[in-house]
Amino acid sequence: MMAIRTSEAEWRGDLKGGQGEIKLGSGAFSGSYSFHSRFEDGQGTNPEELIAAAHAGCFSMALSATLAEAGYPPAKIHTTAKVYFGPVTGGFAISRIDLATEGSVPGIDT
Amino acid sequence: MMAIRTSEAEWRGDLKGGQGEIKLGSGAFSGSYSFHSRFEDGQGTNPEELIAAAHAGCFSMALSATLAEAGYPPAKIHTTAKVYFGPVTGGFAISRIDLATEGSVPGIDT
Repeated sequence: MMAIRTSEAEWRGDLKGGQGEIKLGSGAFSGSYSFHSRFEDGQGTNPEELIAAAHAGCFSMALSATLAEAGYPPAKIHTTAKVYFGPVTGGFAISRIDLATEGSVPGIDT
Repeated sequence: MMAIRTSEAEWRGDLKGGQGEIKLGSGAFSGSYSFHSRFEDGQGTNPEELIAAAHAGCFSMALSATLAEAGYPPAKIHTTAKVYFGPVTGGFAISRIDLATEGSVPGIDT
């Protein structure tokens, strides 16, 4: 049951003046990214919010699965992921990810 | 220059019958995901293709930045990321990511 997921990205130009496009393999989304959308507050996406989305999506699904297995399928599990991205020695890195989850789970939280 | 990127996801129901939605913090994309889009070939997104998109996006941008710093700003750098996701002892995991990059770099590849 190995799944292989393929996405792609293209960048044109240098770091600050260049621009790029990111495309999901499913075709569900493609959009632009830039130095401004990654390091500042410019319009567009960036790799770190994609990581945040992946982490939130995986966690909500996995927690729901665990609750359902225990006999408590959730009405909803909502997760927000915050990815911290900034300078470290030698470059840039994700230094931390915070997850905050709220759930509505009949039979547990009533 | 720390950037904090926030995305969110919600899941409703159990693993196989449930469904969810993933939303990027920038607002550039929101879309549905399901057991079928994650473990099979159903329509929708999944966390692994978001990871693939992030990795391809980061790599294309970083390689372009390095080339430009060396005096060769690229016309384009295109990267495809393949994320392998499947069963491991105790659950599921990403076991491997392959990156394939093609570039058009004036002065280097002519």
